[in-house]
Amino acid sequence: MLSEFSLIDRYFARRAREHTQRATLGIGDDCALIAPAPGEMLAVSTDMLVEGRHFFPDIDPHALGHKALAVNLSDLAAMGAQPLGFTLAFALPKPGEDWLAAFSAGLFELADRFDCELIGGDTTAGPLNLCLTVFGSVRQDAALRRDAAQAGDDIWVSGTPGDARAGLGMMRGEWQMNALVDEKDAAHFRRALEYPEPRVALGLALRGVARAALDVSDGLAGDLRHILERSNLAATVDVDALPLSPALARLPRDVQLQCALAGGDDYELCFTAAPAQREAVAAAAQQAGVRVTRIGTMSSPASTHDAPEIRWRDAAGAPLNLTLQGFDHFHAD
Amino acid sequence: MLSEFSLIDRYFARRAREHTQRATLGIGDDCALIAPAPGEMLAVSTDMLVEGRHFFPDIDPHALGHKALAVNLSDLAAMGAQPLGFTLAFALPKPGEDWLAAFSAGLFELADRFDCELIGGDTTAGPLNLCLTVFGSVRQDAALRRDAAQAGDDIWVSGTPGDARAGLGMMRGEWQMNALVDEKDAAHFRRALEYPEPRVALGLALRGVARAALDVSDGLAGDLRHILERSNLAATVDVDALPLSPALARLPRDVQLQCALAGGDDYELCFTAAPAQREAVAAAAQQAGVRVTRIGTMSSPASTHDAPEIRWRDAAGAPLNLTLQGFDHFHAD
Repeated sequence: MLSEFSLIDRYFARRAREHTQRATLGIGDDCALIAPAPGEMLAVSTDMLVEGRHFFPDIDPHALGHKALAVNLSDLAAMGAQPLGFTLAFALPKPGEDWLAAFSAGLFELADRFDCELIGGDTTAGPLNLCLTVFGSVRQDAALRRDAAQAGDDIWVSGTPGDARAGLGMMRGEWQMNALVDEKDAAHFRRALEYPEPRVALGLALRGVARAALDVSDGLAGDLRHILERSNLAATVDVDALPLSPALARLPRDVQLQCALAGGDDYELCFTAAPAQREAVAAAAQQAGVRVTRIGTMSSPASTHDAPEIRWRDAAGAPLNLTLQGFDHFHAD
Repeated sequence: MLSEFSLIDRYFARRAREHTQRATLGIGDDCALIAPAPGEMLAVSTDMLVEGRHFFPDIDPHALGHKALAVNLSDLAAMGAQPLGFTLAFALPKPGEDWLAAFSAGLFELADRFDCELIGGDTTAGPLNLCLTVFGSVRQDAALRRDAAQAGDDIWVSGTPGDARAGLGMMRGEWQMNALVDEKDAAHFRRALEYPEPRVALGLALRGVARAALDVSDGLAGDLRHILERSNLAATVDVDALPLSPALARLPRDVQLQCALAGGDDYELCFTAAPAQREAVAAAAQQAGVRVTRIGTMSSPASTHDAPEIRWRDAAGAPLNLTLQGFDHFHAD
């Protein structure tokens, strides 16, 4: 361990030692020891965040701490898993005390809210890079898998997708947004981008109710295609049913659709459920305190050889031809 | 997923789908699902490797693939855990097919030898950075913890520590090594640096035999201090008993000691066991096909307020004053 990194130990190792419920050994030994409850599987997800790609170099470190964990918790949410703990490996060019204090505060505020314990880590000098691996607990037969959708299922989405993408557009100066957006909407978009809320409670409430689920990290259209591919289905989406925030609804229609359908970084859940489960879905959403909206239907593919197809419709059922521009990870191919 | 990274998927995702024993879901869903055997804990360790710090920019990618997993498997070995699987997150400036083919070959050759399955991952563009998290299975009461050493325990080390540090010295042009070392010894040192062997079989064989253990990643002196700190003990080490490779034994004595005691990257196991277990330790080493050497004794600290102390002795028991220069992660303070 570098002596300069004793600073890092101070901000992170102490936190890990305070908790001893689930991890028998945390930071300070070769491995952490962790076990899911009897009969449960451990759900594991890993994400790497790189400066300039996943966040701006001048990002508020508190927001970075939040987001680094939020995007990982979101993967647990999309599986219907209960968060247990996480490991944090990171490279830092030159750790400053203010930066580490803010980063660790953002990280642990979210971790404490979801009772998710830091169980291990690694720190090194290098270009800023964060790698988190999260662990959750889920019964194998209750996991919300991507390959479990069925023809006839409703397609649902939580929250108001697109706001994070509008926030990015604002910061990039796209679509002349800075002329279009007032201060209040700007703050809304920026918060959506910097402080995404992992839908953990919703994922848990949807166990046994939803069939397939994932979190929208690369844009609703692209991510929905992952469910189609894995479940071998097609989909029809009612574009007019898309839930838009009041702030996004004030932007031009083409920007709305670009953001809501091809925008990344929302971390809302997109899931499918049988029509017989509509009341149960509504109850799950109410229990989790999250809005959910039915936006379409799964169907059998026209041909098993075709690429998974999404048919876009308006409220009257008329077909729409949408051209969605790619966004970072997203390719509308 | 970036289209340029479909190349990466080709080298890694396919491998993950071939295996389905332990991970119910691998790459392709939000999370992997994994469970230790009933009654076992999951041992988890994460390591980040950064170009220029943990490896040279021109490293053979096959060696890098090997080493990235080896250093993580070594953490499982030091816990006495059976490898189960790993996640791989990495940032790459520009993935080339030759590079990925060689890297993945080095990685999977080692993974297959230890039946350790790739269960998930993340790839992104950015300065070269590898983050692996490994999972193993161990009974909680059989884990080889750092805090379990007792006064009177023998101190043991596997293999011949110092060879990796000599390899680094050679590549850095330190100690006029290039004038001292013949081609055969040079190849030996280089292999020790680039292809460290995780002592998984030894770690497993030492369960119930050894008390405390860790892997020597930052140098024997510094790492042994971690056991002293966690177990609140002091140690006496017989410097003349240090097992040196024939190649290292041909170097000047000060270089030998510098490499063997303060050199990193060996990934040998340092462990303690009661004197009554000497035959059992020998049997475990023979079963694992690894040389082990008794190099000292644990004792009660002179004062509980003192920093953990290592007393260096020669074969006749006379005290030695060693000044060890720090190496990268290592500070002999």
